[in-house]
Amino acid sequence: MDKLTIVKVGGKIVEEEQSLSQLINDFKSISGPKILVHGGGRSATAMAAKLGIETQMVEGRRVTDKAMLEVVTMVYGGLVNKNIVAGLQAKGCNAAGFTGADLSLIKAIKRPVKDVDYGFVGDVIDVNTSELRLLIAEGVAPVIAPLTHDGKGQLLNTNADTIATELAIDLAKFFAVSLVFCFEKDGVLSNPEDEKSVIHDLDKELYSQYKSKGIISEGMIPKLDNAFRALNSGVYRILITNARNLTKPAAVGTSIIK
Amino acid sequence: MDKLTIVKVGGKIVEEEQSLSQLINDFKSISGPKILVHGGGRSATAMAAKLGIETQMVEGRRVTDKAMLEVVTMVYGGLVNKNIVAGLQAKGCNAAGFTGADLSLIKAIKRPVKDVDYGFVGDVIDVNTSELRLLIAEGVAPVIAPLTHDGKGQLLNTNADTIATELAIDLAKFFAVSLVFCFEKDGVLSNPEDEKSVIHDLDKELYSQYKSKGIISEGMIPKLDNAFRALNSGVYRILITNARNLTKPAAVGTSIIK
Repeated sequence: MDKLTIVKVGGKIVEEEQSLSQLINDFKSISGPKILVHGGGRSATAMAAKLGIETQMVEGRRVTDKAMLEVVTMVYGGLVNKNIVAGLQAKGCNAAGFTGADLSLIKAIKRPVKDVDYGFVGDVIDVNTSELRLLIAEGVAPVIAPLTHDGKGQLLNTNADTIATELAIDLAKFFAVSLVFCFEKDGVLSNPEDEKSVIHDLDKELYSQYKSKGIISEGMIPKLDNAFRALNSGVYRILITNARNLTKPAAVGTSIIK
Repeated sequence: MDKLTIVKVGGKIVEEEQSLSQLINDFKSISGPKILVHGGGRSATAMAAKLGIETQMVEGRRVTDKAMLEVVTMVYGGLVNKNIVAGLQAKGCNAAGFTGADLSLIKAIKRPVKDVDYGFVGDVIDVNTSELRLLIAEGVAPVIAPLTHDGKGQLLNTNADTIATELAIDLAKFFAVSLVFCFEKDGVLSNPEDEKSVIHDLDKELYSQYKSKGIISEGMIPKLDNAFRALNSGVYRILITNARNLTKPAAVGTSIIK
């Protein structure tokens, strides 16, 4: 099986010129087929504020009414995505930016309203692995913005961690997928006060212990739930680390293991 | 030679829900390979105004400083492009949205400063016909936003009529290209007061006459100059018409002829 690396980077990395430039260098150096999934929430919040649109988050997820959908479509699909693509192209990496609507790469359904009405937020129902494999076979590095569509003309806002996870799971049928979640720390910490206390290997049991002790913080829980879901769905390797460790030969960071 | 249709639509058509919906229906009905190039200037101007950024036009062209480049990247590359793509996908047309940076489809150089400093505006220097032909061969309908890149990481704002013309000229080596410029009238009018006075065939001589008499107005001149350049560079057929005539069997509108 061929190797495929899927890298997810959060807003903080792609929204600042210096860290974006570093990411571009690191990502293009990854050998073999690769996909980049990016966020951009901080820019979306800032742009919304400039437009007088209030950002409402529920459990870390953005409530997306019509005005906010326009903002995220502009910021994720346009501003952030195209700047990454232009940067990668400048380094000789044949990047192409996509949302889930392009080539119908990722279909979703509008999240049903239960306690919360998230608005135009999509839960992924289908990943178009044929189109992704064609792109990869052509040597293209897809750069994916966290937007999906419902196949009926509606764009939907979808969490970038979730998109990376769904891509990894569906592409695991065809590739030995390494899924790398990048954030600003070197890994999951056993002591939030100590940046060096990286947990090198995290299995389900240890994860439960850290959660029950409150050591693993709220923001990490959805990310780790995604990571364990990927692990249990055939994804070869899952790593949570700092973007600057992307090109290090050994796996620096937190490996999610069985 | 295979047929290829390149349709350019202006901002007015893609920015209003009803005309966009009509365009989507008409575009997907075009048989054979096709490319859509869109504008979005009115939305960009409106978004800039909301953000307190003043729009400055010189001879119908947008002066694009750093803040305005962000606006057009968001509006053209994100908002307008992705709404068209989602709409086409809903109709079963396998659309994918691109800027010139994606797959390095269109390279440009920043316009040299002469009398006017247009800022981040690009003049096209290269069209990546190999990547476009691959997409077309896969049955993809590229939807192209009027943005290019310089290959060094810089996005550039580029007139959509010019992009459509450059694509048509370079792809004319491989296809019998029909280049269709859509706007809100049925064609070029011999009497600006009479919507029915469409000039059916316009050659260079007649064009000169109408220009010298002031019948062909300023806004049409760059469009027609592009059209005659395409004609003289091997483009098979050039039509200027209303978007609603796209699917009519006969060529309704103004044909540019030798």
